[in-house]
Amino acid sequence: MMHQAAIGPGPRMRVLADAADDSAALVSGAVEVGNYRDLGDLSRFASSVDVLTFDHEHVPPEHLRQLADRGVRVLPGPDALLHAQDKVVMRRKLSELGLPVPRWVPAATPAAVAELADATGWPVVAKSVRGGYDGRGVWLLAGPQELEQLLAEVGDLPLYAEAAVPLRREVAAVVARNSAGEVRAWPTVETVQRNGICMEVLAPAPGLTAEQAAEAERIAVTVATELGVVGVLAVELFEQPDGQLVINELAMRPHNSGHWTIEGSRTSQFEQHLRAVAGWPLGETAPTAAVTVMANLLGSDDPAVEARVPQVYRQDAGVRVHLYGKPSRPGRKLGHVTALGDDVDEVRERALRAVAVLRGELPTENRGGSA
Amino acid sequence: MMHQAAIGPGPRMRVLADAADDSAALVSGAVEVGNYRDLGDLSRFASSVDVLTFDHEHVPPEHLRQLADRGVRVLPGPDALLHAQDKVVMRRKLSELGLPVPRWVPAATPAAVAELADATGWPVVAKSVRGGYDGRGVWLLAGPQELEQLLAEVGDLPLYAEAAVPLRREVAAVVARNSAGEVRAWPTVETVQRNGICMEVLAPAPGLTAEQAAEAERIAVTVATELGVVGVLAVELFEQPDGQLVINELAMRPHNSGHWTIEGSRTSQFEQHLRAVAGWPLGETAPTAAVTVMANLLGSDDPAVEARVPQVYRQDAGVRVHLYGKPSRPGRKLGHVTALGDDVDEVRERALRAVAVLRGELPTENRGGSA
Repeated sequence: MMHQAAIGPGPRMRVLADAADDSAALVSGAVEVGNYRDLGDLSRFASSVDVLTFDHEHVPPEHLRQLADRGVRVLPGPDALLHAQDKVVMRRKLSELGLPVPRWVPAATPAAVAELADATGWPVVAKSVRGGYDGRGVWLLAGPQELEQLLAEVGDLPLYAEAAVPLRREVAAVVARNSAGEVRAWPTVETVQRNGICMEVLAPAPGLTAEQAAEAERIAVTVATELGVVGVLAVELFEQPDGQLVINELAMRPHNSGHWTIEGSRTSQFEQHLRAVAGWPLGETAPTAAVTVMANLLGSDDPAVEARVPQVYRQDAGVRVHLYGKPSRPGRKLGHVTALGDDVDEVRERALRAVAVLRGELPTENRGGSA
Repeated sequence: MMHQAAIGPGPRMRVLADAADDSAALVSGAVEVGNYRDLGDLSRFASSVDVLTFDHEHVPPEHLRQLADRGVRVLPGPDALLHAQDKVVMRRKLSELGLPVPRWVPAATPAAVAELADATGWPVVAKSVRGGYDGRGVWLLAGPQELEQLLAEVGDLPLYAEAAVPLRREVAAVVARNSAGEVRAWPTVETVQRNGICMEVLAPAPGLTAEQAAEAERIAVTVATELGVVGVLAVELFEQPDGQLVINELAMRPHNSGHWTIEGSRTSQFEQHLRAVAGWPLGETAPTAAVTVMANLLGSDDPAVEARVPQVYRQDAGVRVHLYGKPSRPGRKLGHVTALGDDVDEVRERALRAVAVLRGELPTENRGGSA
């Protein structure tokens, strides 16, 4: 999707891909195959570009630091990015900035968690400090026995702990900041989760008050500015029952909660990220429709997803399917669907129906028919 | 732009490019270099794809006919495409269909042109039967002496002649048709020409009456259906002073008059073309803004176009620049700019200002500044 945004408007993009059949490698003509965990591969690749940026957070921070020290322009910079890679660094910084975070302790030792639970009550959430995503690396603990069991299971894996915030729903504020300090925000969205995985994004978040929307944007702009983020920043937020917003996670790259912007905004998060890291002025983020809904397509037992795209389009000329070129596997994110319109219930139903068709969960029609 | 549309939604695309630095080859990972005038190159390439389609009309009709006879799925088919390659075939067919065309004669002999001029008066337009575009292959003749001079100059080049239609402006009706016979139309646009080259496209055409819009669409749908076009069809029309529409040219591929649809329509002409030739259902063509203006960027003496994109974006966060990756040359189409909004005069001014900045015709600012 980033390559797609780079065509035409630029800036020109080269891709370091894990394998020749990686999603990005399938569509780009400027691909190098290499290991993003290997400093040699990273260095070689970095020498061929003006700016090094990412579509995930898993490049080792120490490598990025070394590259930056040698003069490679790494954006977002290693200091900023570390806040999306190390959750203790992130929680500490956000606390210092006075931004709303769940009450937390930096190490999930029995003593520290007991003290936390004394203040907030059980359950408590333990999280791996690095590397978790899509619900992995997160454990909801009902009491001290579960903590002990977890600690025995994970061994040396660093964990921290935080209060399990009561929540009405999850929302996300996505912004972009360029190296000149310009920041632009998209409307705050609702992210509908199932088993820790985002299933749908509703843009804008239905029923969010103007005050909440302003607060979400203020939080994201503050994080982007204070951490010196260059590129797209997604701030995942919990909306508590009283309407207060609390920061859950940060991502510093085009993020699933911003995929709706490809069709739903005048400037997509992918184009905005490229403009930001190139030092270009940012594009306007006005929506193109009253409501946009993005629904993720997770693999089912039935792998024949691609062949069902025409059926989706036959049922609804207004939805757009995105496939990432990954082999199907149950639960894997294979793509997403976007629908636009005026009524959130109607638009949502269209997006979900399209996903159900792609997953083979709706009966095949037999009308029309073309090659 | 077609490759950009193929990413994600599919269908997957392979490109036969003239050279490794062709626009399409620069951005696609699936490129074969070969000569589209060579039947061997075409055959080899055709064996690697399910459907063969085009972004220009210059593949020799006899090669396409041979490929089709051997079972290659060529879309639009050779019989349809011939009407965009041979203007006498086109004029004859449109006349048979009772569609409005200028009065014409199939060969620009002195006798035939004299008879035409007796009926319509001078000037008369002579056109090369094959291969002209962007004002090339078109001659406005004031009288018989100019015709004689032209015939002496062009030698064996087949020419036909038609009446010089008095015109208020030019408009274009762009539709797509898939192999199942589904047809969808975009709003009819005004194409602003200078020296036979389209400089701007205003979508929708300002001041077009509902009757004219319906007539333009009827003409394009009739052509697409009666000729069996599969893919995008652009019908260039003259609007006469009395408001009557007359067909000028046909193009059977994504066309300059449809570039505005990338941002200005729910489904772009490039995606629609791919869907059509893949036999997929077509996407909805609703506009994303009240007004979209596309302005072409022609090369000037100053080649530093790409470096000025950030300046354009600094002045106007709402315009979008498309560059085709071609070396600059005076008069060459290097890219285009799209602007969206509510007021045609304002949107047009923004698009033209962006082009002027890219061409180096406006003073460089010195504010802001980023890497």
